[in-house]
Amino acid sequence: MHDRAITIVTYEWVPAFARGFVRDLRVRWAAEEAGVAYSIETTPVRPKAEAHRAIQPFEQVPVLKDGAVTMFESGAILWRLGERSPALMPQEDAARAETMQWLFAALSSVEPLTNGWVLARTVDKDAAQAERAAGRMNPRLAALARVVETRAHIAAGRFTIADILMADVLRVVDSQGGLDAHPALAAYLARQTARPAFRKALDDQMAHWAAADSRRAAG
Amino acid sequence: MHDRAITIVTYEWVPAFARGFVRDLRVRWAAEEAGVAYSIETTPVRPKAEAHRAIQPFEQVPVLKDGAVTMFESGAILWRLGERSPALMPQEDAARAETMQWLFAALSSVEPLTNGWVLARTVDKDAAQAERAAGRMNPRLAALARVVETRAHIAAGRFTIADILMADVLRVVDSQGGLDAHPALAAYLARQTARPAFRKALDDQMAHWAAADSRRAAG
Repeated sequence: MHDRAITIVTYEWVPAFARGFVRDLRVRWAAEEAGVAYSIETTPVRPKAEAHRAIQPFEQVPVLKDGAVTMFESGAILWRLGERSPALMPQEDAARAETMQWLFAALSSVEPLTNGWVLARTVDKDAAQAERAAGRMNPRLAALARVVETRAHIAAGRFTIADILMADVLRVVDSQGGLDAHPALAAYLARQTARPAFRKALDDQMAHWAAADSRRAAG
Repeated sequence: MHDRAITIVTYEWVPAFARGFVRDLRVRWAAEEAGVAYSIETTPVRPKAEAHRAIQPFEQVPVLKDGAVTMFESGAILWRLGERSPALMPQEDAARAETMQWLFAALSSVEPLTNGWVLARTVDKDAAQAERAAGRMNPRLAALARVVETRAHIAAGRFTIADILMADVLRVVDSQGGLDAHPALAAYLARQTARPAFRKALDDQMAHWAAADSRRAAG
C-alpha cells in the first residue's frame, strides 16, 4: 500500500530532557513497524518558524507529509498510517473499531490525567496540585491496568497503533515513577518497548539529536 | 449507509450542573446531522454498574452499540459515524485527513488545556493553579482563534465531525467565561451551535434528564 516514502517533520534540536520523548517517535515507530520508508525534515524548536506555524498552528511536532497530504496530530497521523498498513491496524470492522477506541482512549482518557500529574510535579512543582492530580490519575491507571492484566496488547488481540500511542503515553508517566504502583502497566509497557521497531525508532531519534549537537559544535 | 439504527448509552440521571454537557450529546448531534435513527440505553451514574464497567473500564459515557460493534470514546464513535455518513466526513483523501487531524486536535491539543483551567477553577478552586492553567490555555486558544477567524468550519471547508468535537470542547470553557477574550472562537462556537441538529440533540438530552426527574418523583 505504501508505494511512496513519507516525510516526518520534527524539531532540529531539543534540550536533553525532551530527548526520547518528542512525538515524532510515535510516527517513526509506526513507520518501522509497517516497513514504510521515511525521511526527516526539521523546524527550529525556538524561535518557532512562521512557515511551521502555517501548517501547525500550535507550533508542535510531528507533522506528516505523505504525497499531497500534510497533516499534524500524532493520533491522526497514526490513524492514517494504520489505514494503509495492515501491520498497524486490522481491517475487520469490529477490530478496527476497537483499535480506534483505544487510540482515542490513550490521548483523551489517559494522557490528560498522566500529563496533569507530570506537569504538577516537574513544571509547576506544586505539591497540593500534584496530590490532587495523583488522586485523579491513579484510579484511571488502575482501571487500565485491569484491562492489560489479561491481554498482551490493548486492542484487537494483536499489536496495533493503539499500542504505540498508549505505550508512548505511559513512557512519560513511567519516567517519573508513576507506574511503580501499577505493575501490570509497567509490564504492558515493557512488552511494547521491547519491540525492535520501537528500539530502532528511539535509537534513530536519539541519533538525530546527537547529530544536531555535532552540527552545533562544528558550527 | 446506515440502514440500521444505533444505540447510544448514557447515564440514567445526572445532577443539574452536568446536564447539557454529558458527552452523549456529541453522538446525538452526529446522529441528527447524519439522519441516523438512534435509541437511548441508560446506566446509573452512581454507583456505577459492573455491566457498564465490563464494556467501559473508565465507567464513562457515551458507549455506542452499532450492530455487532460496541465501543466507547466519543472521538472514536464520531470517527465511526463519520466513516459511514458523508454528511459528517468528506470522502476525498486530503479532506478526510484534515477532518481527522482536527478531530484529534480538539481532544488532544485543546481539551486538556481548557479542562485544566475549568478544573482548577470549579473543582480544585485553586487560584494559583488556575492562573498557571490560564497561562497555558490562552495562547492555545489564541492560536485556534487565528485558524477559525478566516473559516466557517474547522476542517475541509465544510461542516464535519471535527466541528462537533471542537464545538463541544469549547462549550465547556465558554460556560466558564473562557472565550470572552477570544471573540473569534465565540463566533465559531455560535455558528456550530446554531445548527438545528445541535439544538435538537441538546433539547433531547435535557428532556432525558427531565424524564429521569419525573420518574424519580413518581418512584
